[in-house]
Amino acid sequence: MTDSHILTLSCEDHPGIVAGVASALASHGANILEAQQFDDVLTGRFFMRVEFALVGGQGIDALRAGFEATARAHGLDWALRPTNERKRVLLLVSKFDHCLADLLYRWRTDELAIDPVGIVSNHPRATYAHLDFGEIPFHHLPTDPGEKERQEARIRAIVEATGADLVVLARYMQILSDGFAGWLAGRCINIHHSFLPGFKGAKPYHQAHARGVKVIGATAHYVTADLDEGPIIEQDVERVSHRDTPDDLVRKGRDIERRVLARAVRAFCEDRVLLNGATTVVFPA
Amino acid sequence: MTDSHILTLSCEDHPGIVAGVASALASHGANILEAQQFDDVLTGRFFMRVEFALVGGQGIDALRAGFEATARAHGLDWALRPTNERKRVLLLVSKFDHCLADLLYRWRTDELAIDPVGIVSNHPRATYAHLDFGEIPFHHLPTDPGEKERQEARIRAIVEATGADLVVLARYMQILSDGFAGWLAGRCINIHHSFLPGFKGAKPYHQAHARGVKVIGATAHYVTADLDEGPIIEQDVERVSHRDTPDDLVRKGRDIERRVLARAVRAFCEDRVLLNGATTVVFPA
Amino acid sequence: MTDSHILTLSCEDHPGIVAGVASALASHGANILEAQQFDDVLTGRFFMRVEFALVGGQGIDALRAGFEATARAHGLDWALRPTNERKRVLLLVSKFDHCLADLLYRWRTDELAIDPVGIVSNHPRATYAHLDFGEIPFHHLPTDPGEKERQEARIRAIVEATGADLVVLARYMQILSDGFAGWLAGRCINIHHSFLPGFKGAKPYHQAHARGVKVIGATAHYVTADLDEGPIIEQDVERVSHRDTPDDLVRKGRDIERRVLARAVRAFCEDRVLLNGATTVVFPA
Amino acid sequence: MTDSHILTLSCEDHPGIVAGVASALASHGANILEAQQFDDVLTGRFFMRVEFALVGGQGIDALRAGFEATARAHGLDWALRPTNERKRVLLLVSKFDHCLADLLYRWRTDELAIDPVGIVSNHPRATYAHLDFGEIPFHHLPTDPGEKERQEARIRAIVEATGADLVVLARYMQILSDGFAGWLAGRCINIHHSFLPGFKGAKPYHQAHARGVKVIGATAHYVTADLDEGPIIEQDVERVSHRDTPDDLVRKGRDIERRVLARAVRAFCEDRVLLNGATTVVFPA
Repeated sequence: MTDSHILTLSCEDHPGIVAGVASALASHGANILEAQQFDDVLTGRFFMRVEFALVGGQGIDALRAGFEATARAHGLDWALRPTNERKRVLLLVSKFDHCLADLLYRWRTDELAIDPVGIVSNHPRATYAHLDFGEIPFHHLPTDPGEKERQEARIRAIVEATGADLVVLARYMQILSDGFAGWLAGRCINIHHSFLPGFKGAKPYHQAHARGVKVIGATAHYVTADLDEGPIIEQDVERVSHRDTPDDLVRKGRDIERRVLARAVRAFCEDRVLLNGATTVVFPA
Repeated sequence: MTDSHILTLSCEDHPGIVAGVASALASHGANILEAQQFDDVLTGRFFMRVEFALVGGQGIDALRAGFEATARAHGLDWALRPTNERKRVLLLVSKFDHCLADLLYRWRTDELAIDPVGIVSNHPRATYAHLDFGEIPFHHLPTDPGEKERQEARIRAIVEATGADLVVLARYMQILSDGFAGWLAGRCINIHHSFLPGFKGAKPYHQAHARGVKVIGATAHYVTADLDEGPIIEQDVERVSHRDTPDDLVRKGRDIERRVLARAVRAFCEDRVLLNGATTVVFPA
Repeated sequence: MTDSHILTLSCEDHPGIVAGVASALASHGANILEAQQFDDVLTGRFFMRVEFALVGGQGIDALRAGFEATARAHGLDWALRPTNERKRVLLLVSKFDHCLADLLYRWRTDELAIDPVGIVSNHPRATYAHLDFGEIPFHHLPTDPGEKERQEARIRAIVEATGADLVVLARYMQILSDGFAGWLAGRCINIHHSFLPGFKGAKPYHQAHARGVKVIGATAHYVTADLDEGPIIEQDVERVSHRDTPDDLVRKGRDIERRVLARAVRAFCEDRVLLNGATTVVFPA
Repeated sequence: MTDSHILTLSCEDHPGIVAGVASALASHGANILEAQQFDDVLTGRFFMRVEFALVGGQGIDALRAGFEATARAHGLDWALRPTNERKRVLLLVSKFDHCLADLLYRWRTDELAIDPVGIVSNHPRATYAHLDFGEIPFHHLPTDPGEKERQEARIRAIVEATGADLVVLARYMQILSDGFAGWLAGRCINIHHSFLPGFKGAKPYHQAHARGVKVIGATAHYVTADLDEGPIIEQDVERVSHRDTPDDLVRKGRDIERRVLARAVRAFCEDRVLLNGATTVVFPA
């Protein structure tokens, strides 16, 4: 698999894209292992993800250079990277560490092929005394009143210094400033509880309980300036009943949150998530 | 099962309710077949459903009369009816008949032990040409502009004339007036689509699609003046993807709606749904 | 959509298939609307489904003729048909009509774009008195002892006379002979209950109940000589509890059966199901 | 909640049980917080779980002593313990630690109110280097050929020395001898993968993949001599597709296994699981 690569692209839909892309790849010795396309008939935008192995040709640099002409001809937004290149991931967390612990466990067991480049928290290291962070640098960045701007600048510096490809808000309970959220657009995933129907305002679990919801869920989405309203990447649910107190809903919600976040991070790291305006195209694994 | 009965009750929680109720039943020859209780610690309200068979005693009338004292002593709101007594159900429908067709099929096959006493629609009989209504009276009550009050009065007259225990809004796409909705409170079930999170306003399926929801659902709830906000009885969901157009979401939504509504009607007809303020206690079957 | 077509193909995997197919289509004026590929790394077999619109070229016959060379060059098993050409479907049913009623309803409401060419039952028409068959021919073919061969021959004659593309065993409770099952291979879908884990032998619902299963399901699969063991097309499940009697499991199973069968038929009719030895490739809608 | 207790009982069904039990509790100052009953009409066995608070009377010892007469009168198998008394749990694990890590995390966060009294593995401590066992004693008990009897004897000694209430086979990949399994009956929970339908024999994930299953699951059950066939406590599933390799199924299976096992352990520790011959009654939380 050392010579396997993933190509993702999008463009305005028009005849000949697949033929053009596939021919360009074939002419440089690429054998397509998997390809998925999606033509959004509502917006006229075309999306494609291709995984291929080099079985001939003169190497990936030659392919990359040669592909430029195809990309220009079809007006492609495109990216190309080795399948085995791990995404660099910065993890932000607050008091509740269920998502953090879950992501770290999946990283340890090689279930999640990420390269954690740092853990940032507004709580001290001792909050996570029972979690083994190994060699991952830990940054305690308190969110003192009036210090949000400075704190976000420090996170931003860490993102830049580590070259993080992805920032994960693993139950990071701080509201990002619009500017910071915008700067992270398309490379920052948040997780939050979700209900059917939704409940706005404070104590949503209590509101949901008060109306007798029978299903609760969680949503992983890209961060945008509107914190909980970004393009959705993954969701899941569980059944609940009148026996569940608001605390039970919170507990069950934690389980959903961690598996939904893990799936979203995995999809991102496998280049399966393509932004499509305010929504996403998520090619299934 | 001819002498099997269902007792439902609620009251302020206090010691001795179960003992009092169970002893009263036992003293009148009742053998408890199934009993479920729920003590809502948040509100201090107690709920109970008991199904019993008369194996001795002097009959159900004697039990009913004798139970009065127990009910008074414990401040019970209670109801008692034969298990095999079918609920009288009035079905309201508009253009889309997937829920109506489903309920009728379950009634035909005896899966749903109801007694349909009428079908009301603002569309003519021909709209449902392929559905066999058998002996069920059909009422075409158009909703002409300015006629809502008169139309609702006619439905009300049908409810009264038929002695309907339950009114089912089986995709009845008319907004009920506050007065009519209030009059139906606790005996009228509505079904509508639901999302995770919710989307307010027009074309919710389009809004949900535009954000890339991965799960859609449906909610069956008691009707209150606030049409889509009543106490929830049942919910369910299905997964969707970016490949689903808004029309696909609508189609998948229909499947969820019909099974959720059928489950809610079934729970109501088996006296499993107890109102608890703005929420419900739904004792599982 | 009148000039939209669906191309399905499979072949031994090798470099250049996508490029070859896409180029051939493009050269005949086809604009790809959707394409999905799957490369089975375990078997080395490649599968593809392409939906395209003719936006230029000299028509579908020219494309079909021109595609022959590409197909030969890559060793393709392929099929090509207009998207709006409805599959001709023969429905076989026994006493329980929940799947039949469901399929007919979806056909009536145009949710399922099929062309029902006949209904065959070993029970008389009166068994389905409340179902409106419209113009669909009904065939009562009793399965008298010793008559299986003759009865199957008559079904076979109906399949041939109607040119049925698909035979659906919609709870058809007769065991097909090996010869007949083999003759129907790849164009006959069966539905049956499934458990987690499975239970062999008689009364599986009772066996499942006896061990306390918490989940029951249904499986739609291609018929092979080994009746309940063919390649799986679709499955789904529901939760159950100790409160569910075997009869309750049967009732809940019916709901699962009908939605699983409807999904499988839909996938077949949209050419989304490709046989892959003993398994299937089901491209999602 | 310090004076809250849980009473569980079962007996042959007969009139007056609920009345007898509830009256006995009430007469000793117990206020019922929650009660669930189940009358198995197929076997004629009655099951009950009551949680109550002492609001009067002369304490739990007096209640216990006084309840003896009621228990004898109704032929009850019964148990009574303080709600806040944690179950003592011994965890057995082999190479794969996903279930162990999950249970420990839930214990740390107080989501699972257990008292882990030991971890037993046939692998050395270093296998779990990244897991913080805290004060929990670790026992490395290799399963050398011909040593099964001695190894099981040592586990048995640990169960006895620690007074473990529950033994959890958290992916403990050793087959227990019939004698040992029998000794653990009713207090040992196992987790294993499950399919729809089931697949017997070696490499079940490969078998399931080969037939194209669309749903995989996991089952938590009581251990009996027939290792994977004991009474089922909890099950859950996830959807899969033709894109999932057998390795993907294994990975997805791990996620299901850990949440199913955690739910089963939780239900056991809250005295919600009552044995009913070869099946279980699991009163929902």
